[in-house]
Amino acid sequence: MDITNRFSENPILTPKMVKPSTPSVGIECLLNPGVFWFQGKVWLLVRVAERPEQQEGTTTLPIYNQAGQLELMTFRNDDPKFDDSDKRVFEYDGAHYLSTLSHLRLLSSHDGIHFSEDPEYGPIFPLGEQETFGIEDCRVSQIGDTYYLTYTKVSPTGVGVGLITTTDWKHFDRKGMIFPAHNKDCALFEERIGGKYYALHRPSSPSIGGNYIWIAQSPDLEHWGHHQCIATTRAGYWDCARVGAGAAPIKTEAGWLEIYHGANEAHRYCLGALLLDLQNPSRVLARSEEPIMEPLAGYEQTGFFGNVVFTNGHLVEGDTVTIYYGASDEVICGAQLSIKEVLKSLGR
Amino acid sequence: MDITNRFSENPILTPKMVKPSTPSVGIECLLNPGVFWFQGKVWLLVRVAERPEQQEGTTTLPIYNQAGQLELMTFRNDDPKFDDSDKRVFEYDGAHYLSTLSHLRLLSSHDGIHFSEDPEYGPIFPLGEQETFGIEDCRVSQIGDTYYLTYTKVSPTGVGVGLITTTDWKHFDRKGMIFPAHNKDCALFEERIGGKYYALHRPSSPSIGGNYIWIAQSPDLEHWGHHQCIATTRAGYWDCARVGAGAAPIKTEAGWLEIYHGANEAHRYCLGALLLDLQNPSRVLARSEEPIMEPLAGYEQTGFFGNVVFTNGHLVEGDTVTIYYGASDEVICGAQLSIKEVLKSLGR
Repeated sequence: MDITNRFSENPILTPKMVKPSTPSVGIECLLNPGVFWFQGKVWLLVRVAERPEQQEGTTTLPIYNQAGQLELMTFRNDDPKFDDSDKRVFEYDGAHYLSTLSHLRLLSSHDGIHFSEDPEYGPIFPLGEQETFGIEDCRVSQIGDTYYLTYTKVSPTGVGVGLITTTDWKHFDRKGMIFPAHNKDCALFEERIGGKYYALHRPSSPSIGGNYIWIAQSPDLEHWGHHQCIATTRAGYWDCARVGAGAAPIKTEAGWLEIYHGANEAHRYCLGALLLDLQNPSRVLARSEEPIMEPLAGYEQTGFFGNVVFTNGHLVEGDTVTIYYGASDEVICGAQLSIKEVLKSLGR
Repeated sequence: MDITNRFSENPILTPKMVKPSTPSVGIECLLNPGVFWFQGKVWLLVRVAERPEQQEGTTTLPIYNQAGQLELMTFRNDDPKFDDSDKRVFEYDGAHYLSTLSHLRLLSSHDGIHFSEDPEYGPIFPLGEQETFGIEDCRVSQIGDTYYLTYTKVSPTGVGVGLITTTDWKHFDRKGMIFPAHNKDCALFEERIGGKYYALHRPSSPSIGGNYIWIAQSPDLEHWGHHQCIATTRAGYWDCARVGAGAAPIKTEAGWLEIYHGANEAHRYCLGALLLDLQNPSRVLARSEEPIMEPLAGYEQTGFFGNVVFTNGHLVEGDTVTIYYGASDEVICGAQLSIKEVLKSLGR
């Protein structure tokens, strides 16, 4: 099932439309933007994944060293210890390395379709030893005048969720890692419920458990507790292998509406919806039996990593949710959903 | 290397010395006690692992259902989907199940060697949907008059760290899950540092990262942030496969002294030490090159899961640390260490 209306202009951003961060690398993919209103414009905080030009017979991966400089690691493709069967995560002698290095780029638009960079608002680059393999998939939530950026920090010690706050998009306050390894896909609720802040997050387990959506509480958005699993994968379903939250839950009369992603064993990523109780968001009221969006368009089926639609950013205006999403882990697209129709698909 | 003096009475507690929680099960193992002083006596909070009597050709596992009742699951041993090659965690059709179900039992002693149960102080049983596969390996930290119990909560949704507080060991206040899946081995510092509480914990990652020791900060012991990895496994060492904190760090003039466990690929568990900066405990000053304790005694080499010494409880009196530890995942033992000698082994 697919109840979205895709932008006719899709894809709205491709790797060729943005400049690499340094001449030594090229942009492989644009992915999974955070989305927000600021100064009367629509902004995307796009994940830009780069890697150096490859030489025949070898694979060269970029990492940031702890001094914040780009370093290159090269493996021989015929080395029996080297495994590049997953295009996103390579393995060498038991250790894992990302095939690309990501940073976050700000682009803005007056119409929500045509985006461009503004030299006044620079990129957010990885910083420090928790981000030497990059920063990824940033959600942007707004509470009062402050924007809260929850994003994936990647380094050899693990993958966790970082928090950055800003009010002006020029000065950034880094609040460290709020969810430790292995964790991604953190979506903050944009208001307190019963005096507490809430977040959805996605821990992964090497044994017992899986890639499930959890909820947590906080007094201050920096320290989190009372973790509970609210949505597991479902055997035989489109979301049987992994699930993870998208952007900030949308407050509706029926409950908090969360658009999430689910993938099956073949790594086909679709979108679905969860409806959570307004007063107690750890209570799931409804969940999509069928996807609300599937990779159906050509640009969603073919690319760096095909058969993927993945969203972690949207704008809400009345009944309309405009989602911005990564397609095939390569290009950025847009689509619209009716909240009423999503609720109807949930039997509400 | 081994610089401990084992109790001559070891093992001090064996499965036969404790009664099962219900007649339908037997006690397979006593494991890894938390340790504390209370009412002038030494107390152990022992993990008791039980399972029903097994019938030939099948394997029966116990779980708690959400109503808090014991339920049994039976698998045919010749079912090709059933894998019991790890005696601790069985697999069926991709899902993992613990071979035993654990609860926590209080035993006390006047001499620290001979322990017995007191009907006034009952067991702590698993409770709720996060503990249907049991509760395990409880650390006990004391801050003021309050005891803080950090323990492993196990259920199909994952393995995480729970917090319970008590002042009288009769009334328990459950504070939910403080570190989400996959996490274990949480040791709380017993005082604030720079106004913040600190904890060591051990997340595990399915890819990128591993089974490493992390540190976190909290304003209230219930909500945690600022997670940082402080000790990874070390290739070629005795702790090359997994490491995890033991009991509360011991404050010394040289720094916070943490006795931790490390295991190699063959699942041989030894103990080592970490020395952390007094003002900034995320800074590691020294770490054991060689173990300070190895499974050398017969009862440490042979048992339910052999070649294991594992501690998460100790008493500190002057220069002497009395550790209580699980041997071969089956019996409880005691041993003493000199803080000076441990520091000397760290080059201090």
